[in-house]
This record gives sequence, structure tokens and C-alpha cells, in this order.
Amino acid sequence: MVTSRDVARGAGVSQATVSRVLQNSTHVRPETRARVLTALKEVGYTPNAHARAMRTGRTSTIGIVMGRVTNPFYPELLGALGQALSDASQRMILWLSEGPAELGAVEAIHGHTIDGVIFTTVREGSVALEEAIAAKAPFVLVNRVIEGLRCDQVASDNFEGARAVARYFAQHGHDSVGVVCGVPGISTNDERLSGFIAGLKDEGQTIKSRNIVTGDFTHAHGMRALAKLMALKVPPTAIFCVNDLLAFGVLSGAGLHGLNVPADLWVVGYDDIAMSSWHCHDLSTVKQRLDDMAGATVELLLARIADRDRNPTTLRFPSQLAIRGSTDNKPTG
Amino acid sequence: MVTSRDVARGAGVSQATVSRVLQNSTHVRPETRARVLTALKEVGYTPNAHARAMRTGRTSTIGIVMGRVTNPFYPELLGALGQALSDASQRMILWLSEGPAELGAVEAIHGHTIDGVIFTTVREGSVALEEAIAAKAPFVLVNRVIEGLRCDQVASDNFEGARAVARYFAQHGHDSVGVVCGVPGISTNDERLSGFIAGLKDEGQTIKSRNIVTGDFTHAHGMRALAKLMALKVPPTAIFCVNDLLAFGVLSGAGLHGLNVPADLWVVGYDDIAMSSWHCHDLSTVKQRLDDMAGATVELLLARIADRDRNPTTLRFPSQLAIRGSTDNKPTG
Repeated sequence: MVTSRDVARGAGVSQATVSRVLQNSTHVRPETRARVLTALKEVGYTPNAHARAMRTGRTSTIGIVMGRVTNPFYPELLGALGQALSDASQRMILWLSEGPAELGAVEAIHGHTIDGVIFTTVREGSVALEEAIAAKAPFVLVNRVIEGLRCDQVASDNFEGARAVARYFAQHGHDSVGVVCGVPGISTNDERLSGFIAGLKDEGQTIKSRNIVTGDFTHAHGMRALAKLMALKVPPTAIFCVNDLLAFGVLSGAGLHGLNVPADLWVVGYDDIAMSSWHCHDLSTVKQRLDDMAGATVELLLARIADRDRNPTTLRFPSQLAIRGSTDNKPTG
Repeated sequence: MVTSRDVARGAGVSQATVSRVLQNSTHVRPETRARVLTALKEVGYTPNAHARAMRTGRTSTIGIVMGRVTNPFYPELLGALGQALSDASQRMILWLSEGPAELGAVEAIHGHTIDGVIFTTVREGSVALEEAIAAKAPFVLVNRVIEGLRCDQVASDNFEGARAVARYFAQHGHDSVGVVCGVPGISTNDERLSGFIAGLKDEGQTIKSRNIVTGDFTHAHGMRALAKLMALKVPPTAIFCVNDLLAFGVLSGAGLHGLNVPADLWVVGYDDIAMSSWHCHDLSTVKQRLDDMAGATVELLLARIADRDRNPTTLRFPSQLAIRGSTDNKPTG
């Protein structure tokens, strides 16, 4: 087997330089890079996954299954998972979109071209998930929890995060509130809605079903939902959206309706994606500990790969309310 | 070989139902789904990429290499490519991040687990690109153009798109303008800057180098660039940003500086990503024909896979200025 030492010798450079070239670092002079690439070719170096897999029984490659999503939260989750995998010296393959494309993941599981799978937007009954269970392939669910499924799962504490929002509204004098939901049946959606209702109950409040607007997870739905809520006989003075993308839609809708946020209307999202803190949104939201969640996901998966019989764990990371300009945290009391 | 007909017979359902289960469609009753999944297992059905590849010499799987990017343009490009691949009955694998993760793509090229590669954020000298060239693997570059490289390339006409922005500014009386750039050396950045300067020249104008602020492709850089430009002795009355993300940063910065857009300042971006039309941004920008670009990319790649000796093509798709509230298109004449 050819090592990077052979390549370094051939190119007359250090092993560190070879490594930098392989990592496509910009700290290598073009002439040096060319010399290393030539040396790589001369020694016939082609990093061979199969050969390595035969040797170690491992591919050091992890597959991720993610639906075709427009919510900017998912690229951020992907970035965090990519970083965590890279920190653990693992390579990553992504299968985007559910449905037929998922079969690529199924094949990889059966073909042993990956060591394990991270499911991010999976639903109960998903083909790839069923296959992973049937094939006893190591896998972890992140940001989705399926009750009763015996496997490792990682999520933020959606229930408590949303509960804190309801209490925050109530404690600041709001007694007519609205909720903008996405698709029912998705755990993040359902847990955040339940948590919000529980928080209202803590404060002796209830919410009418017409004050809860259900749709999809899009900016357009957020805008339409705002219009619906404002058409109620008693419009809400504070709206909780189960994710930030919906909240941006509500903010856009509020602008079109000539509503002043937060004077006329409070808006709170969930996720704390990067653009929530942009000046134009300045959105109060519930921050998910994405890096911690990604790190734990990779850690659990590697532990599962090492020991398939260990007990499954469900980790819930606490979320934290981040107050910004779309609400006013001055006490009313 | 087991076919979906065997599975359909085993489950007592139609082939269409088997297909729906494999596609994870929601239009299948849970009991039916369970019966089909059982039948799939009974006939030992495991969609096997290797067997299919042996039979056809093709994997029907295309790899995409994309850097770890925060610009929301890239998830949109990915969505468009995913759709185009799906329309062409191709599966997709994504290698996210450049550097070490790119080796996964290199291995897939050598291991023939994919038929071809689409490079989206590649730079000259990238390991995976060098390997694809050396291995004579079919590949296409999209949204990046590398001059002098003999291969299929697809991009929007960045030069002409940016040129139109400069002329639009000049023709509406702006004679002090600014440009917010990202990283020099990236073709999108360089072509858009050159095109803008050419458009000014068309109108008999020039731009001082201090009116061009270079940095990275982030919202934060957009904000900082706005502050820099406004600190000039003669601050610009119109700013062109080489992408929408930078323009959002400039809009945020303008808000913080108490500037009224468009009364005090015109802002134009490039890309027309979905959130540009959100009420809070309402950004004038240059629209890329993303779906057409993605379709052409997949078409060129499949043609290349079928005939490796065909002449390389570079396709440039015209871009179009989309006027919104961040500029005022009332003629000044």
C-alpha cells in the first residue's frame, strides 16, 4: 500500500504538505501543489474506499438522509453535522429528498458502502428507515423523534421550549394569542404546539382552535396565516410560530397589514437560524443548541457502530428563549 | 431477478401500489404498506446498485460536489439540480464541503459507484476536479466557469447581468455608486464586478477603487461594507452587491444607519433567491434562470456519459433585472 510518506518522498516535500494538498488548503504554492499531484499519480495513489473497508471493516463514511426542504434551518443543521463528522474524521454522503432517492441510502446500507446513517427529516414508515431497522444498520434520528421506536434519537426539548414562549406571552399581559403551525404529524410541529398549549394552561389560559392555523412550513403560509388571524373577531396580540421561516412570513404579513411589531403585535419563532438576528427580522425565537445536537448525534452513531447491542438513548437538548425586537421584554406588572 | 411484479403478486396489490410504497407516497393505507414491505422482504428484494451496474454498465447515480456554504442560493441550486436529476430518473449523492470530504467524490469516481459528477463551487486545482480530469470521468461545472478548462460548463451570463445594473443606475442619475464584492478569484464574483464596471463605462462613468469593497460572501460583510461606503467623502447613492446575501447585509446596515431605501440609497443584488421578494427585503436583483441551468447541466452530463468524446460546451444563460422596492424605476429624464 502506498502511503503519503511515499508521496512526500517522491515530491520532495513534507508529509504535512501532502496532507495540505489533499485537503485542498490554500497554504500551498501552486508549483508545490503540482509536484505533489504528480507524485500522487506516479505512485498510483487512488484513495480506495473498498480496500480500506476490507482492511478495517469500516468505510469511515456516514450517510445522511434529508428531505428536499426549503427551510434554511436544514442547511444549518447539515453544516453542524458536517463539522461534527469532520471533527470525528468521518466522511459524509447526503441523500437529498425522500421517496425514490432514498433508495440510494437503502442500497448503501445493504452494500456496506457506509458505516451508518443519520436521518434528519424522516417520518414513520419511510422506506430507508424501515430498511435500516430490518438490516440492523447503525442509525440515529436527529431533530425528529418517533415515539416507541427503539433507536438513538437526538432533538431539542421542543415541548419545554414552546412552553416557555406561552408563559412569556401570558406573563406580559397577552390574553389573546395565536399559533402558526406547519404540517401536523411532524414531531417538531406537534411537540411545539403541545408545549405552547401546556404553557398557556400553566398560566390559566386556553386557546381556541380557530387561533391555531395549520399549513406547511413556508414563508407564504406564514403570510396567509397572519391574514387569517387578523381577520378574527378578537385578533391575537402575540403570535407563536413553530419555526423561524413561518415567523418571517408573519412579519412580512404584518408589514403589509400596516401592523407595528412589537407595538401592535408580538411575534416569536423557533430555531434561531442565522437570519433571525438580521436587523430586518430582529426576531425573538427559541434557540436550538445545534452544534451540541450534531456532536451528540455523531457520538451516538459512532458508539452504535462500535457496539450494536448497547441500549438506545434519546437525548433532549434544552432550548433557550432569545428575546429580540419582535417582542418587548419590559415587565408589565 | 425479483421484479416489482413478484412483489405485487406476493402482497396481493397492483404494481402501481408497490411503486407508491417504494416512493414513500402518502396515498397508501398503512396496512397495505406493511403488506408490501413484508412481500419485499419475502422475495429478498434489496435494490442492488452493484448488480444493476454490472447489468447496464451504469449506476444511474450522479454525484454533486458543493462547498460548505452559508449562501441560501446553494440550497436553491441543489433543489433545482435534484429536480432535474429526478426528472431524468437519476439518483443523487452530495458531497458537502471541500477539502478532505471531497476525497469521497474522488473514490466514487475511481470506484465507478457514480456515472458522473456535477461540480458547483469548485475552484481551479481542486483535488476532486483534478481527479475527475485525470480519470476522464464525465463531469460538468455549474455556476462556476474556469477559463481554458476543456469541459462542459453552465453558468448565468454574470457579465451582462451586472452590466445591466450599472446602466440602470447611470440612466437614473446615479453618478456615485458602490460595489460590494465577495471573494476575488471566484468566477461569479469577478465576472459580476467586471460586467458592472463595463456597464459604467458604456455610460461614460468610472468607479474609484475605494468604492469597491471586497470581503467574503456573508451578511456580516454586507453590513460592514455599507458602513465603509457611507464613511466615504462622497458616499454612493446606489450600491450593487454581487449576490443577494450581501445585499441583505447592506439593507440591514442601511437600517442601522437610519438610511431610507430607496429614497437615500438604491440597493441591487444578484441571484433572486426566494427571500429577495419577501416584504422585508423587497430587493431589486438579477434573476438567474436556475431551473434552466440545472436542466442543461443534467442534460450535458448525460450526453457526456453517453459520448465521452463529444466537444465540450459552455452554456451561458441570460439573466434578467428584477425591479423591486429597493430601487425606484421611475425615469428621471
